[in-house]
Amino acid sequence: MSETVNVALDAMGGDNAPAEVVKGAVDALSEDNRVKVFLVGREPVISGELKKYTYDAERLEIVHASEVIDTGEPPVMAIRTKKDSSIVKGLQMVKEGKCDAFVSAGSTGAVLVGGQVIVGRIKGVERPPLAPVIPNANGVSLLLDCGANVDARPSHLLQFAKMGSIYMESAIGIKNPRVGLVNIGVEEEKGNALTKETYPLLKSCPEINFVGNVEARDIPAGAADVLVCEAFAGNMVLKMLEGVSDVLISKIKQGMMTSLRSKIGAVLVKPALKATLKGFSTQEYGGAPLLGLNGLVVKTHGSSKAIEIKHSILQCITFKDQNINEKIKEQIVLGD
Amino acid sequence: MSETVNVALDAMGGDNAPAEVVKGAVDALSEDNRVKVFLVGREPVISGELKKYTYDAERLEIVHASEVIDTGEPPVMAIRTKKDSSIVKGLQMVKEGKCDAFVSAGSTGAVLVGGQVIVGRIKGVERPPLAPVIPNANGVSLLLDCGANVDARPSHLLQFAKMGSIYMESAIGIKNPRVGLVNIGVEEEKGNALTKETYPLLKSCPEINFVGNVEARDIPAGAADVLVCEAFAGNMVLKMLEGVSDVLISKIKQGMMTSLRSKIGAVLVKPALKATLKGFSTQEYGGAPLLGLNGLVVKTHGSSKAIEIKHSILQCITFKDQNINEKIKEQIVLGD
Repeated sequence: MSETVNVALDAMGGDNAPAEVVKGAVDALSEDNRVKVFLVGREPVISGELKKYTYDAERLEIVHASEVIDTGEPPVMAIRTKKDSSIVKGLQMVKEGKCDAFVSAGSTGAVLVGGQVIVGRIKGVERPPLAPVIPNANGVSLLLDCGANVDARPSHLLQFAKMGSIYMESAIGIKNPRVGLVNIGVEEEKGNALTKETYPLLKSCPEINFVGNVEARDIPAGAADVLVCEAFAGNMVLKMLEGVSDVLISKIKQGMMTSLRSKIGAVLVKPALKATLKGFSTQEYGGAPLLGLNGLVVKTHGSSKAIEIKHSILQCITFKDQNINEKIKEQIVLGD
Repeated sequence: MSETVNVALDAMGGDNAPAEVVKGAVDALSEDNRVKVFLVGREPVISGELKKYTYDAERLEIVHASEVIDTGEPPVMAIRTKKDSSIVKGLQMVKEGKCDAFVSAGSTGAVLVGGQVIVGRIKGVERPPLAPVIPNANGVSLLLDCGANVDARPSHLLQFAKMGSIYMESAIGIKNPRVGLVNIGVEEEKGNALTKETYPLLKSCPEINFVGNVEARDIPAGAADVLVCEAFAGNMVLKMLEGVSDVLISKIKQGMMTSLRSKIGAVLVKPALKATLKGFSTQEYGGAPLLGLNGLVVKTHGSSKAIEIKHSILQCITFKDQNINEKIKEQIVLGD
């Protein structure tokens, strides 16, 4: 358990790069001495940021990459042409075995495409799902797929259920996680062609704890630990969760500022509210892993601050300690 | 504009039937003297409820129906076999021209199936979408389709956009409503097979004000007035909106009760918060119309109280006044 975990970190990715990314790296180093971080990006910029901190220089290296892939760029073309970008170089380090993991807050599309093209899929894995942890009323659930692979097939969803169960049990520590199929009704015969064909596959799979269909209405209440769906539906669920939370919280803040009475009340409720709402946030759980690759690739939110970056780096330790990829290989290759 | 609007109301539908349904009917009568309500359901029960109120007996009739369709019943079979149910009888009254509209808080499936089978589609309409009005940060949007017709085709979505625009402009009063295609990214080339094929159809349609793709993240902020999608995605959006709001509001209430300080604060902020959150509710907009039928069919939430029932009945007046079905006929039949 004392082996070093080498993490390539995209120093140029996300809205707050490089400042928050570099800070997150430094914070991760001081929190766990098994981590070594390779900051991939423009050397002069990264050096400049690093001057602000003291850190264990033995466990931090800069890997110069002259190019940056923007979030608006078509991913396939970007991965193909920008060979000296932080994303391509970081992924290459995983591919070559120099690093155990790559973490980026940059272009989701480029990370997804690059992860598959450069790092490659575990043999037998049809599609690597992007699997963010989302908050619910009592804890968290894993939502997969939220990636760019729309129009999935039932066999893909079955693999998502297996990989998601392994991740939820090993990385998040939920024993025998309940797997739900995201659907428009709870009855077995409900849904579209995809969910109707997927249901019996999940039902008859001995490796998972399938609890049936889950309506979106019941996702925030925590109806299942592993939520299986194709990426379009997953995107709706994830983005509505973010969008509704944001609008509602800003409405509540507005509401509290409408009168003197409510302003005084706001001062009094603020600390308690902050603590409660913190539980409805995923900052503490790191980023979303792209499961089923020959190495770990983690995508963190584009708006990540140092805390999310730090947790995303620390998450790589658990992933390695728990041998998650070995478990996936075992179940996908031998189980299918 | 002084013509009577005849509304058949499912007295047996919804969690709060018949008490709240009957109350909603009585409230609607006293609010607008152009309404006549036909309460369809078990006569003795309805009569019993009506004894609680005074109302204009000229404008309220009971139509006895001995059967009730439960929400759990397979809809097609229920419509076929329960000929004396409140849903079948109410829809028949629209079909026969005795009523302008049918309103139900009962089984969504049965109302959707019955609407199509009994009332029938306007010639040229491929699929009648269920179109609820949903709240956003600054007002409301129309989300269609939220019905049971999954696996839609691009031509269906084009019709949804046209019908939704007519409804939003005529019934809700939003001039030249912005139509958005619900998608997983804003760029034209993003999405699944359905959205990629639908985008150019919407873009080249002169009758609508197409503003491009809308990400779910931006729906609660009010990115478009008319949100077009197939029913599976629509269901995710609608149900996540409800589920996240419920969990967040209950978390906030819990949070406010954690300390003496926050409890005092809660008392002070309560009235202001209540007023603000009321704006993020759709009670005032009535139920979801099933657009494109030869008559109006409105599905209200299963948990509807008298206020939603009342607004759903009053909504039928606007629908008739604004000749919404005539406008749909004109655009679908002549426009295609």
